[in-house]
Amino acid sequence: MFNSFGNILRLTSFGESHGKGIGGVIDGFPAGIYIDTDFVQRELDRRRPGQSRITTARKEGDKVEFLSGIFEGKSTGCPIGFIVWNENQHSDDYDNLKEVYRPSHADYTYKVKYGIRDHRGGGRSSARETISRVVAGALAKIALKQLGIQITAYTSQVGPVRLEENYTAYNLDLIESNPVRCPDLEKAKEMEDLIFKIKGEGDTIGGVVTCVVKRCPIGLGQPVFGKLHAALSAAMLSINAAKAFEYGDGFKGLKQKGSEQNDVFYNNNGRIETRTNHSGGIQGGISNGQDIYFRVAFKPVATVLMEQHTVNISGIDTTLKARGRHDPCVLPRAVPIVEAMTALTLLDYYLIDKTTQL
Amino acid sequence: MFNSFGNILRLTSFGESHGKGIGGVIDGFPAGIYIDTDFVQRELDRRRPGQSRITTARKEGDKVEFLSGIFEGKSTGCPIGFIVWNENQHSDDYDNLKEVYRPSHADYTYKVKYGIRDHRGGGRSSARETISRVVAGALAKIALKQLGIQITAYTSQVGPVRLEENYTAYNLDLIESNPVRCPDLEKAKEMEDLIFKIKGEGDTIGGVVTCVVKRCPIGLGQPVFGKLHAALSAAMLSINAAKAFEYGDGFKGLKQKGSEQNDVFYNNNGRIETRTNHSGGIQGGISNGQDIYFRVAFKPVATVLMEQHTVNISGIDTTLKARGRHDPCVLPRAVPIVEAMTALTLLDYYLIDKTTQL
Amino acid sequence: MFNSFGNILRLTSFGESHGKGIGGVIDGFPAGIYIDTDFVQRELDRRRPGQSRITTARKEGDKVEFLSGIFEGKSTGCPIGFIVWNENQHSDDYDNLKEVYRPSHADYTYKVKYGIRDHRGGGRSSARETISRVVAGALAKIALKQLGIQITAYTSQVGPVRLEENYTAYNLDLIESNPVRCPDLEKAKEMEDLIFKIKGEGDTIGGVVTCVVKRCPIGLGQPVFGKLHAALSAAMLSINAAKAFEYGDGFKGLKQKGSEQNDVFYNNNGRIETRTNHSGGIQGGISNGQDIYFRVAFKPVATVLMEQHTVNISGIDTTLKARGRHDPCVLPRAVPIVEAMTALTLLDYYLIDKTTQL
Amino acid sequence: MFNSFGNILRLTSFGESHGKGIGGVIDGFPAGIYIDTDFVQRELDRRRPGQSRITTARKEGDKVEFLSGIFEGKSTGCPIGFIVWNENQHSDDYDNLKEVYRPSHADYTYKVKYGIRDHRGGGRSSARETISRVVAGALAKIALKQLGIQITAYTSQVGPVRLEENYTAYNLDLIESNPVRCPDLEKAKEMEDLIFKIKGEGDTIGGVVTCVVKRCPIGLGQPVFGKLHAALSAAMLSINAAKAFEYGDGFKGLKQKGSEQNDVFYNNNGRIETRTNHSGGIQGGISNGQDIYFRVAFKPVATVLMEQHTVNISGIDTTLKARGRHDPCVLPRAVPIVEAMTALTLLDYYLIDKTTQL
Repeated sequence: MFNSFGNILRLTSFGESHGKGIGGVIDGFPAGIYIDTDFVQRELDRRRPGQSRITTARKEGDKVEFLSGIFEGKSTGCPIGFIVWNENQHSDDYDNLKEVYRPSHADYTYKVKYGIRDHRGGGRSSARETISRVVAGALAKIALKQLGIQITAYTSQVGPVRLEENYTAYNLDLIESNPVRCPDLEKAKEMEDLIFKIKGEGDTIGGVVTCVVKRCPIGLGQPVFGKLHAALSAAMLSINAAKAFEYGDGFKGLKQKGSEQNDVFYNNNGRIETRTNHSGGIQGGISNGQDIYFRVAFKPVATVLMEQHTVNISGIDTTLKARGRHDPCVLPRAVPIVEAMTALTLLDYYLIDKTTQL
Repeated sequence: MFNSFGNILRLTSFGESHGKGIGGVIDGFPAGIYIDTDFVQRELDRRRPGQSRITTARKEGDKVEFLSGIFEGKSTGCPIGFIVWNENQHSDDYDNLKEVYRPSHADYTYKVKYGIRDHRGGGRSSARETISRVVAGALAKIALKQLGIQITAYTSQVGPVRLEENYTAYNLDLIESNPVRCPDLEKAKEMEDLIFKIKGEGDTIGGVVTCVVKRCPIGLGQPVFGKLHAALSAAMLSINAAKAFEYGDGFKGLKQKGSEQNDVFYNNNGRIETRTNHSGGIQGGISNGQDIYFRVAFKPVATVLMEQHTVNISGIDTTLKARGRHDPCVLPRAVPIVEAMTALTLLDYYLIDKTTQL
Repeated sequence: MFNSFGNILRLTSFGESHGKGIGGVIDGFPAGIYIDTDFVQRELDRRRPGQSRITTARKEGDKVEFLSGIFEGKSTGCPIGFIVWNENQHSDDYDNLKEVYRPSHADYTYKVKYGIRDHRGGGRSSARETISRVVAGALAKIALKQLGIQITAYTSQVGPVRLEENYTAYNLDLIESNPVRCPDLEKAKEMEDLIFKIKGEGDTIGGVVTCVVKRCPIGLGQPVFGKLHAALSAAMLSINAAKAFEYGDGFKGLKQKGSEQNDVFYNNNGRIETRTNHSGGIQGGISNGQDIYFRVAFKPVATVLMEQHTVNISGIDTTLKARGRHDPCVLPRAVPIVEAMTALTLLDYYLIDKTTQL
Repeated sequence: MFNSFGNILRLTSFGESHGKGIGGVIDGFPAGIYIDTDFVQRELDRRRPGQSRITTARKEGDKVEFLSGIFEGKSTGCPIGFIVWNENQHSDDYDNLKEVYRPSHADYTYKVKYGIRDHRGGGRSSARETISRVVAGALAKIALKQLGIQITAYTSQVGPVRLEENYTAYNLDLIESNPVRCPDLEKAKEMEDLIFKIKGEGDTIGGVVTCVVKRCPIGLGQPVFGKLHAALSAAMLSINAAKAFEYGDGFKGLKQKGSEQNDVFYNNNGRIETRTNHSGGIQGGISNGQDIYFRVAFKPVATVLMEQHTVNISGIDTTLKARGRHDPCVLPRAVPIVEAMTALTLLDYYLIDKTTQL
């Protein structure tokens, strides 16, 4: 049950890094929606490796092939199967991993849990699995666009380099103008240079993606265990390398008192709004019509191109030096994945909300 | 489906702050486990208001009554129903809320979503709902104890006052020795004084709960969408007033490079362990046998005893001053709730893991 | 997860025959619906034992107490908890069952599965659990009534005595006019006399309940695994003592050829209808607007008041003679339970159908 | 959520009759099991059309291609994706269906529900979808074989021709010896001739599949809503054209009294068994170690090669005559599908049962 995401709208994903491909099934997608496959492919392209000097040099075409659920260009309400075939895999790069557990990877835990492990490129634990999320998320975005909901994510921190202001201070249209996907062009350059330098060292670095949802209808979210931010948090922390989630004021708001942090309501020309938005657009687990925003921390990629101590599968101490083509920093490519998981969560909750009243 | 938590082990909760009571049904609890009802009640007592000068003065007996699923002291494998009857409610304290939306509460969003709202004490959105979690969590703790798994949470920050060290620097046995539930006694006093001062101002303050899991078996967690940390995050952010979650190095680790943050494996007298634990005991979404630790941020309680601007249910600007007995800081009482949700998550995942191999 | 029924609308049930009571939580019930508690109680009364000379002489008040989710008479969208307290239990009647497995009961299978068993009145396996279904079903009926959907069940067979015609041949208003709940008054008398005679022998008898749904909207049902008839079948066979389910022509239609059994469409004054209804109102798993009808077989009650061979809990051959007050035939009391499960299924599917299109 | 089947073991299926192919994802399949792909293909071959003179003449190669979840021949615990590519489709055969609703098909209900319909070969409502079930069921069979559980289905009725005895009277090894899959060779011939004759008339006929499970462990099944027979019933009625389900004595047992139908226990050389098996191997929803057996009715195929009245998509009365290659009787090909759904249900319940005790 754990390779599925969502309730009414449900993505079930399959595939390994060095298997035949990565695919999935999107169930519960609303019927009658025109599927712009070019848009889906463009979203996939945003995730694809090899986009710039700061991502992995691996070339992956990553063309999506839809297998079902679309008829004469429109969704039919039936499950949408899809696959992105693997290609250009260098499985040999991983031969040396057959007998050894890479530090801070899933190798060891998979082996203990399942008793068997596909060592090639991390197998199922590879971030290549996120392809299925980007495809499904692109479809969700298409539906959300019809509802006027807009999702934008961007890189707000790489290592120590960070945007100091809230999202409202930036022109989010600039995000795609640079390889880091950061709306502050000066910081973007700084981040890019840092990543390039770290890459040269064979090392890696982490950072933060900030995501903003505009024009979310009021009422999405299920109180108690299905709070909207709880769902978003689970969605974000299911992405490879994610380590933390905060929404609204998050950790930063702790120094403020309740009287400072409360978002007072006022009547804005007939619409009830809040003067501030410390709540991040969610109150009691339910969207209140203000912008939703949250931040997701990603750790440095575990694969470093330098010698590390570890143990082999017999438990004997050894050393390991990774080979192959790896990302020095996931942040730029994480941006579309964060957007995709946000879109899936919101469309699911939008559909659920339709059942609230008879 | 959203008043249920868990997969195999599933808590379904019901009840409002000023209704008849708060209760729940625990389904999938393993059969044959001796239920120490005194222990359950002690856990509830840890959550109960009125424990000290820094919590609300409300007196709530909060005695749990089990309704089913236990026979001759043992769990039968059948659903365990329970209820904690409400008493000593001052519903009149909330009469002034009937016509008005409290800032940063769920009043407005509930009204828009459902078209109807129980205004008394927040109704379903009240933190009183967490009673059901503490009862169910106590049962989960009993089962986990049989497996040797130990869960400890504590207050690590209140407003600006914070513990600077990782959990390993503290004697966790001291947690219950002070009303803040902080293992550093000096800081505990500082936190307590701060809360007391804030309370005197009619204001509120937030903070952080840190939680540590020791002796978790290797292999708990489901890769991809059911990663252990994703499940913990959703569990934590479903708690009232929670705003952020980080595990392992979380946000703090972002300044380190991969080579610094990787946890190298070594053979520790026949057991594979990691030299460091930046991963927080979870790799690839699966527990690796090291300590699991994470931090949860809670915002200041939204109910402040001072006049605030807001709108009424007709959308007209007005002011509001809360009455009644409220917590100036949720942290001390959040500690057992964090433990409870952790216990529910771990027992659920332990049971799921039993199905991994034939 | 298995004490819950439904997807969007979900009943979670708890309680044992001789525990404190039978209760449940109804999650996902639409907000804003006036809850006629008198109607709910009348439905429960239809299920209650002791209604006539042909049901058990046990007196059970079976008064429902709602615990949450209703505010000022209306559903709030929050979970509706409820309980029916047990009373007038003669647990001593079951002392002789502590050491012995009753034939064709759940005693033996529960013991092997759980390692522990509440022997008093069958514990969780008692048909007393169906109280929770009737309460939840009554609420569902209230909602369905607003949608114009009408559910009627009746006893169509008791042992060898059976109604020969389809439901359309009977006046369904007569069902409550006799203790058997059969719309053919002559047959009803025959059935009643048969049950009374069998009861005198200390024996039991089974039969069939037929259920009819009128004015079901077109489009309810999910193709493939969630076909409407598959859901109804699972609902019906989850009722104690149910052994078989057929809808539309069911087993009886097998002698006909496709050309005879197809339901041809025609335009009936602007509405597309079928000339016949062999399909039972469901095509491809989806309601087509015609009457839905199906039949459920119930076996004779396993508790007979005569000596039977069996084994005790040590596996030693022994004999057993049941004591106490038991139903000679479940059919009359099964009628409201069949209706309740039908109502829960239909309201759930109605809510799900709202998510089909954006 | 409705294109998925199962709880722990979950098949998610996709694909249409005239789309690219039929596929699925099997999640929760136990790790470390050797996957005999030849066996899977043989099971698919049993379902394939064109096996004899009494099935459709369509030629479909139906070769399964596994996409993930298998490494070095063994299941890895990761989701097993697979696809069977469509080929040899005559979509033109269905051009005349674009504007018209076929009687007793899903055409009309799909159109009303979704607002859009893939008319080619029934699209998603085609029985071709059952390919995914047979593939997944074959995998489940492999796992069940390791547990010693054996599932056998056979055709026990075609139109009026039926086997009069219970399954114990027949040599089930003979099932695959004839195209009808009936263990009574004389009856098999009679059935085959009947189907052939009906086919010649352009008409169709229904029948019954009986299924037997031997050596099922005691304890499978979840009481209340997850009774084993309720799950089997839902599984069976989710198969295209299924109309009825009965287990144990089912409808036939209604003439017997409780004293006649109870299965008394006895000690059979140290094993508790029942002298009779009216219960069909399930008591209180839980397997009791005796043979499980049940019967599933399938209606005549709706596609008849003769002119029928119907309406077109504008609601205007018209007539329709089907073209193309169709099965005159689903029974022979339904046998492996019934087995597959039984296997999926049992393996799922076996895995669930592992969580009953700590």
